Amino acid sequence: MLIVPEREIADLMTREAAFSAVEQVFASMAAGDAYNFPVVREAIGHEDALYGFKGGFDRAGLTLGLKAGGYWPHNLEKRGMINHQSTVFLFDPDTGKAKAMVGGNLLTALRTAAASSVSIRHLAREDAKVIGMVGAGHQATFQLRAALEQRDFDKVIGWNLHPEMLPNLEKVAAEAGLPFEAVELEGMRAADVIISITSSFDAILMEEHVAPGTHIACMGTDTKGKQEVAPALLAKAAVFTDEVSQSVSIGEAQHAVAQGLIREADIAQLGAVINGAHPGRRSAEEITLFDGTGVGLQDLAVAAAVVDLAVEKGIAIEVDF
Amino acid sequence: MLIVPEREIADLMTREAAFSAVEQVFASMAAGDAYNFPVVREAIGHEDALYGFKGGFDRAGLTLGLKAGGYWPHNLEKRGMINHQSTVFLFDPDTGKAKAMVGGNLLTALRTAAASSVSIRHLAREDAKVIGMVGAGHQATFQLRAALEQRDFDKVIGWNLHPEMLPNLEKVAAEAGLPFEAVELEGMRAADVIISITSSFDAILMEEHVAPGTHIACMGTDTKGKQEVAPALLAKAAVFTDEVSQSVSIGEAQHAVAQGLIREADIAQLGAVINGAHPGRRSAEEITLFDGTGVGLQDLAVAAAVVDLAVEKGIAIEVDF
Repeated sequence: MLIVPEREIADLMTREAAFSAVEQVFASMAAGDAYNFPVVREAIGHEDALYGFKGGFDRAGLTLGLKAGGYWPHNLEKRGMINHQSTVFLFDPDTGKAKAMVGGNLLTALRTAAASSVSIRHLAREDAKVIGMVGAGHQATFQLRAALEQRDFDKVIGWNLHPEMLPNLEKVAAEAGLPFEAVELEGMRAADVIISITSSFDAILMEEHVAPGTHIACMGTDTKGKQEVAPALLAKAAVFTDEVSQSVSIGEAQHAVAQGLIREADIAQLGAVINGAHPGRRSAEEITLFDGTGVGLQDLAVAAAVVDLAVEKGIAIEVDF
Repeated sequence: MLIVPEREIADLMTREAAFSAVEQVFASMAAGDAYNFPVVREAIGHEDALYGFKGGFDRAGLTLGLKAGGYWPHNLEKRGMINHQSTVFLFDPDTGKAKAMVGGNLLTALRTAAASSVSIRHLAREDAKVIGMVGAGHQATFQLRAALEQRDFDKVIGWNLHPEMLPNLEKVAAEAGLPFEAVELEGMRAADVIISITSSFDAILMEEHVAPGTHIACMGTDTKGKQEVAPALLAKAAVFTDEVSQSVSIGEAQHAVAQGLIREADIAQLGAVINGAHPGRRSAEEITLFDGTGVGLQDLAVAAAVVDLAVEKGIAIEVDF
């Protein structure tokens, strides 16, 4: 049994490793080699916490297990701990024995950033120059850092409901030597790639805010009722997702599907583009949209990668279990 | 983070501690203080394995977590490992942080045996003298050992589809200084308490095999299609269970309910008897039946108890996670 504590993850895991793990598992899912289990998510009636399990099995990568944990909204104020707490457990698919336990907090941020990043690699125009951020919280910084590696961007623009948080984005842009500009939503028309990463329950991004040829990665909508993009904008775009069943039920596509603007069959798996089974972007004018809902297999994939790295560097704690 | 490996469980866990943990959590469930999450159970398409998660939260005992694992049918022949493999993970309900990891194999046997034992304590006649076993596998020995502590039994009788396994029971009886007799099913009329623990998909125990006043603990039926007892016998009995929703869907009561012989509302929680909210056995002639379907909270309860014992004895492995 190998243990990789949360404190080791930052030094071990690279954005490249997260990218490649998530890209591979999206491909496995689309090829039918990997699947996610039903998600358990419970309001436990204690500390207002949401707790649950996201499991899956990747037959190609032989990765089996789950992420367990959730959201404890009072952790920060009461205890100075982060509110999202999770742990990934990997099992040996040949025997059913527990194989590894990995801190899941930073990994969750990295795998979510890797997902939008994979979508940009496979769906954004090659000549994309301006990246627009809708949302400027902690997660947004991970998203932006990962995205900047995918194209030769020369400018970052950003919008946030609370503009006082925009310096978070400006800092990441500066790290990459890029100028940053705060914009109104109309200003997003200058972007070639837009990442939305908010906790909004109403559409923020409308048709008129997005220029032809843009790639949009919607990363904030992972629950019934959440929404970042106008259904008409989504309906106009070529829509891709990690997991179609989640996209239409808890993802960004839930609203357009409910309004009859698109059908489930109109949504493609990003993995199919990676596999070459779907052509992906069809023209320089097409708007592509990735609905990143977040699946357990992403967590397992990055956790398995981090265990390999920890073993390689002699950092994994071995317990005779 | 505390770790209690499988190899330590046998020396740490006592039948008394398992009994008391299971009795308490059944009471918490009936009081509405503890609940089980939806069960995830997947045929993963690798090694013919069944894998999944049974989670729950006990607000009274502050026990949160899950048992993960399943059934790997080729473990024994291929690798000399047991086929049932499971691990229990406990979380801190105040923060969501992983708190303990405990080997779940022996604990599963102990918590299952404790469940029928709790039912005998609360439902069998005080003057029960003869205990009858239907089934003589590995699990049956755990069941019998735990049951013998609940009443002043003076004889063990047993039946098994493959009679060559009956010496398993005879050995446990001998340990307790009791005579053992192999019987036909008709011979079960001599029993005051019957435990059925088989993997049968057809009724074994019929009305005519059971005398008035008997307590029956049906412990083998935990899946759609499995069956140990004739629906007419179940319908005649006062039926108790760990979890009513499981009893009618995957437990022994599934058949009588499907045939319209009883309704869900006819089934009581064993925990209500423990709490005093249900009178339990109503007469010396009544047949009582406990449908033990097995719930995640049982696993969490015994795992929490074993962690306490391991800490007390300085055996728990502490990892800075």
